[in-house]
Amino acid sequence: MLNYIFNPKTIAFIGASEEPKTVGSGIALNLLQSKKKIFFVNIKSKKIFKRKTYKSILDIKEKVDLAIIAVPCAVVNKVATECALKKVKGVIVISAGFSENNNKERENELKEILKDIPLVGPNCLGILNTKNNLNASFAPFIPKKGNIAFLSQSGAIIDSVIDIARTENYGFSKIVSFGNEAGLDLSDYLDYLVKDKETKVIAIYIEGIKDGRKFLEVASKVSKIKPIIVLKSGKTELGKSAALTHTGSLAGDSKIYSSVFKQAGVIEVDSIEELLLTAKTFSFNEPCLNGVGIVTNGGGFGVLAVDYFDALKIKVPKLNEGKNPFDVLGDALADKYEIVMEAMLRQKDIHCLLVIQGLQIMTEPEKTAKIIVKLQKKYGKPIIASFVGGESFKKAVSIVEKNKIVNITEIKKAVKVIRYLTYEK
Amino acid sequence: MLNYIFNPKTIAFIGASEEPKTVGSGIALNLLQSKKKIFFVNIKSKKIFKRKTYKSILDIKEKVDLAIIAVPCAVVNKVATECALKKVKGVIVISAGFSENNNKERENELKEILKDIPLVGPNCLGILNTKNNLNASFAPFIPKKGNIAFLSQSGAIIDSVIDIARTENYGFSKIVSFGNEAGLDLSDYLDYLVKDKETKVIAIYIEGIKDGRKFLEVASKVSKIKPIIVLKSGKTELGKSAALTHTGSLAGDSKIYSSVFKQAGVIEVDSIEELLLTAKTFSFNEPCLNGVGIVTNGGGFGVLAVDYFDALKIKVPKLNEGKNPFDVLGDALADKYEIVMEAMLRQKDIHCLLVIQGLQIMTEPEKTAKIIVKLQKKYGKPIIASFVGGESFKKAVSIVEKNKIVNITEIKKAVKVIRYLTYEK
Repeated sequence: MLNYIFNPKTIAFIGASEEPKTVGSGIALNLLQSKKKIFFVNIKSKKIFKRKTYKSILDIKEKVDLAIIAVPCAVVNKVATECALKKVKGVIVISAGFSENNNKERENELKEILKDIPLVGPNCLGILNTKNNLNASFAPFIPKKGNIAFLSQSGAIIDSVIDIARTENYGFSKIVSFGNEAGLDLSDYLDYLVKDKETKVIAIYIEGIKDGRKFLEVASKVSKIKPIIVLKSGKTELGKSAALTHTGSLAGDSKIYSSVFKQAGVIEVDSIEELLLTAKTFSFNEPCLNGVGIVTNGGGFGVLAVDYFDALKIKVPKLNEGKNPFDVLGDALADKYEIVMEAMLRQKDIHCLLVIQGLQIMTEPEKTAKIIVKLQKKYGKPIIASFVGGESFKKAVSIVEKNKIVNITEIKKAVKVIRYLTYEK
Repeated sequence: MLNYIFNPKTIAFIGASEEPKTVGSGIALNLLQSKKKIFFVNIKSKKIFKRKTYKSILDIKEKVDLAIIAVPCAVVNKVATECALKKVKGVIVISAGFSENNNKERENELKEILKDIPLVGPNCLGILNTKNNLNASFAPFIPKKGNIAFLSQSGAIIDSVIDIARTENYGFSKIVSFGNEAGLDLSDYLDYLVKDKETKVIAIYIEGIKDGRKFLEVASKVSKIKPIIVLKSGKTELGKSAALTHTGSLAGDSKIYSSVFKQAGVIEVDSIEELLLTAKTFSFNEPCLNGVGIVTNGGGFGVLAVDYFDALKIKVPKLNEGKNPFDVLGDALADKYEIVMEAMLRQKDIHCLLVIQGLQIMTEPEKTAKIIVKLQKKYGKPIIASFVGGESFKKAVSIVEKNKIVNITEIKKAVKVIRYLTYEK
């Protein structure tokens, strides 16, 4: 039933405008970039961006699949009633001024009006579908195509994530700003995404969950098929009260949330950066069993890595043919890396590699990068590269990243994503 | 007494070589880039890089301030004896093969030979002094000038830090790879750096401390004058055994270390990234009292920030003229930021600001950046900027960073450095 929201053939946008830097013009311009049939509705204007504009959705003769509403909150329900009469197949209400603003009554009324029609929002940014180039939101750009779906209770975080991702090596399938969840809730989107062919990983930002039981049930099923990664805010007392003012969410006890996530097989992270890095790692890799091999050309890096792994209960099995972490030493050429990596990849209790390289006198970053790519293909086990440096490793990083191998400069973060990638038998 | 090591007029390098990608040629080429008088010593060669080469340091007629030794470990002590006879004023032993390799006897002998001469190493990368462009190490480049001193037990981490810093907005005064500390130890360097005019902040990577009592005494004094930031590895059982193999350090109980650091007023961080970010923050800012004001144009960012601050016990005082965090909302222009920031900066119990901005429809990043710069100068309180995005904020970030205001994209990290910057009355 969500298909009409993500793949509408015809869209009516009620509240379209030409005035620059407004939600009305932002969404209008974004919609015009899709190849869908778009109808603008505005009670005052005759033309918007040179297009015929309708006074009401009811004046449109053709069928309308999706209606997007961005009008003052006082008239949203009137407009929604017309959408129901028009028999649209889905509605997105962008407008704020509902339960997040203590106006629970207006939200209940909206819910009642649209009870048989899937509803995104109210109080949201909209949705994006990269497959058909649909930006039904006021996010400033449509991100690169990729296999990560991102669901967020905060619209601003979506804007930021899209901007951060512009120079990163991952992309998105669908993005949903779900707002107050008067109609569709988080679990409904999960239900849809588990069957979505473009989506491999689901990343979520939330302040609170409306229906905990439903989430536990749905997420438990979905997480067996696609990894779900959650950033939950409103964890502390101060954070909870901030969340209440922001989205009207009852953030609740963070320990209860964490335990629900754990039960449901959901991975909980604690920053936007970690959310994206973990999603990217799952976008490129399959989960693996517990047991990591570490190759490094600097002993200090090895000590740091082992510290981090040990603290997170990741096993660092003894290598049959040497030590783990294996320090190839500062004068190691790339071939030394190859020998050690291959010994590790052949060993049965090593399921994943962390390959660390700092720039020392004999270091061959590009050659090492090519070996990483070759051996990852040969053995199929996940490899995380950690080229610890900047400028000097640009080429090497681009070689591994082009081949869908994640490079993470900071070893602590590399270890953390390996922890998330690991499951127990 | 360390002045001859960091500011020698004449340097003899014993173990110089022309062979590419070796320690011998690496150091030789680095030394030639300084404007010091350099003498190469090599028992076999007559000329190295077209310079006259001596068979022994004793063949040099002029005085030698600093001798650098990079010869096979079996002959280090013979060469060191000649350095002592030559009455050099300082020695750096690069060569490995001492206590880290279970050869405690050889290290004791070296110590005895050079007992009256300051000794860096053995088993180290060397030292760098950006003020006089001296790279007496085999690190591949000399970093930008700045006010951060970096002391490291791991040479590879120095190489990486220098490479990471190439595209970053901070610089270094002195860098020391202190190795096995047979002569000079960590505390001796702290003693020197506290008086060093070029140094404002001291960053340290260690696996273990040789003389804990001396460190506690010295660091306690130094930290009252200049912030000391430490990354200590070898914290877990596995990490400890890795450290032992790497630098021969007894990593010891990490709780004891943490308590010593706390007593000594030393800031302990847990990754290379955090070490550098914290050093940079202190490089640009003075410490402040506990109390932060948060401005944001996205409620979700505010909730995240408050969560992180609350967990780290940083106060978020109520604003006399509104809420804290103050959400200027998604449609805020830069002038709204200015009004709120100024109200916060005027308030007595707010000692520091976190200014968060995501890219929304009306956002004016460059204007906001200029306001941040202006108000920081006007009120003198530390401000950390968090432009949460990528490409769209490049200009804004460069405006604040040029004016020595730290921008940190990830809010969690921004909060953490504010925690480190905060002291209690």
